[in-house]
Amino acid sequence: MAVLVVGSIAFDTVETPFGEAKDELGGSAIYFSYAASLFCPTRLVGVVGSDFSASHLEELSRRGIDTRGVEVVEGGETFRWSGRYGYDLNDRTTLSTELNVFSDFHPKLPDKYRDSEYVFLANIDPELQLEVLAQMERPRLVACDTMNLWIETKRDALVRLLGQVDIVVFNDAEARQLTGEYSFVKAARSLHQMGCRAVVIKKGEHGCLLFTPEGHFAAPAYPLEDVFDPTGAGDSFAGGFMGYLAMRGAGVDDEALRRAVVFGSAVASFTVEEFGVRRIKEITVEDVQRRVEEFTHICSF
Amino acid sequence: MAVLVVGSIAFDTVETPFGEAKDELGGSAIYFSYAASLFCPTRLVGVVGSDFSASHLEELSRRGIDTRGVEVVEGGETFRWSGRYGYDLNDRTTLSTELNVFSDFHPKLPDKYRDSEYVFLANIDPELQLEVLAQMERPRLVACDTMNLWIETKRDALVRLLGQVDIVVFNDAEARQLTGEYSFVKAARSLHQMGCRAVVIKKGEHGCLLFTPEGHFAAPAYPLEDVFDPTGAGDSFAGGFMGYLAMRGAGVDDEALRRAVVFGSAVASFTVEEFGVRRIKEITVEDVQRRVEEFTHICSF
Repeated sequence: MAVLVVGSIAFDTVETPFGEAKDELGGSAIYFSYAASLFCPTRLVGVVGSDFSASHLEELSRRGIDTRGVEVVEGGETFRWSGRYGYDLNDRTTLSTELNVFSDFHPKLPDKYRDSEYVFLANIDPELQLEVLAQMERPRLVACDTMNLWIETKRDALVRLLGQVDIVVFNDAEARQLTGEYSFVKAARSLHQMGCRAVVIKKGEHGCLLFTPEGHFAAPAYPLEDVFDPTGAGDSFAGGFMGYLAMRGAGVDDEALRRAVVFGSAVASFTVEEFGVRRIKEITVEDVQRRVEEFTHICSF
Repeated sequence: MAVLVVGSIAFDTVETPFGEAKDELGGSAIYFSYAASLFCPTRLVGVVGSDFSASHLEELSRRGIDTRGVEVVEGGETFRWSGRYGYDLNDRTTLSTELNVFSDFHPKLPDKYRDSEYVFLANIDPELQLEVLAQMERPRLVACDTMNLWIETKRDALVRLLGQVDIVVFNDAEARQLTGEYSFVKAARSLHQMGCRAVVIKKGEHGCLLFTPEGHFAAPAYPLEDVFDPTGAGDSFAGGFMGYLAMRGAGVDDEALRRAVVFGSAVASFTVEEFGVRRIKEITVEDVQRRVEEFTHICSF
């Protein structure tokens, strides 16, 4: 089954202790799409300027990513972000953010997208996330991400959204900030009470937690020698997670969600081995499965 | 088989977001002993002043902890530490440290202790840790801890020690500081090269990593609603870890070490539910085993 993603498409300029990359293709929806399309047809909704080359779109299409939902604003410029990481990869400094065409973005779903059964609302204004849901027919499974900005400025819309999604995929700081709970157990309970059946909390190098009404699962991060560039790890996690669920045709059952978390973690572990989407562009689902097998060993006692 | 521990015995005064405790029995060797003695006979080596009451010693004995190695310095005062934690329990502020009798401590092993097969050298000056090993006959398995102070001031002695131990049980910051490697995979390899067969890296609320020549294991932390007081979590982890290995009569084989990590994590999860050793004093090995079973579910996919 197909998965639909709505989010940012960007050119990123990134400095890490291991090197620099300029105007690298990025953005939450791009990372998600490259990850999810390993497993299932992927439908991309986003906005770009006329500086976004046809070759980028072609490359997405070749990967099985449907780009009919990518709006091109003639004369506009694509969203640009630049940032710097130190060795502590949780510590990211944003150097500049140029929203450009992204600042006036209102997602418009192509008619053919409306019946998508799996939907991921990547980090955009929760009012826009709600607009997307209003355009959907009857999605089977909806997941969303967010960020500190919306927790601070659009809390009501975000809480309204959470009443309409099945799964939240937040990082640790977001889960804590939104719920006001330091304990992840309490934060997850609070998110359940807002209406989300499953809560995924991403902790970067410390792995990922899953809370469902049936139980708790903790996945470690894959033990890499070095994280080359952590940009997009969270979004490609989400892509692997949702892509796996869509491939399986799964709902929010505990067993499928656990495996989806591991598939997401495995995909993210490839993403961070290179700048941008360079690494996840070249891997196959068999590469991911081999890493999932390694997780089995890493978690067993 | 019996496990021997050498480390600090202290009275701790602790402030946490959940309350305060004054002159609570603590210190690395105490936490270790209460944890290890759940599984096996435990021999305690440390030093106290005449302010350390006989009832404390009696209580340790009742738990099966051999206190003949506790030196009492008449007229001296026991080591005292006080500190404060915020909600982020990795963020600890030391308010005062009074070493007292601990400052002139030179561990003297009772003759009956010299044949101990399992030895844990808790965090003390590495020169003293080496003095302990020099008094041992032929321990089967030696593990050690350390702290930033010794990494900075006694690096050579510490490195010499690492050539003589089988397992290091360090926290994340110590592993990184000693090896100069940010990546845990690289830090573990560096510690292997210093002579330690197995490397355990404690990450507090993020669980624990084990690196052996046979592979890598990642254990999550037990999902508690609240960590009431994190003091002693690392030392009671080590006590559960070593106690389990001694109970099994195990060496440094991968399978036993993995289970030992989970037993250590389970014991530590009890420790932090109350001030000091209050909680681990009252639990049984069956309580620990039940939590180990829960870990099985938390880690499975």
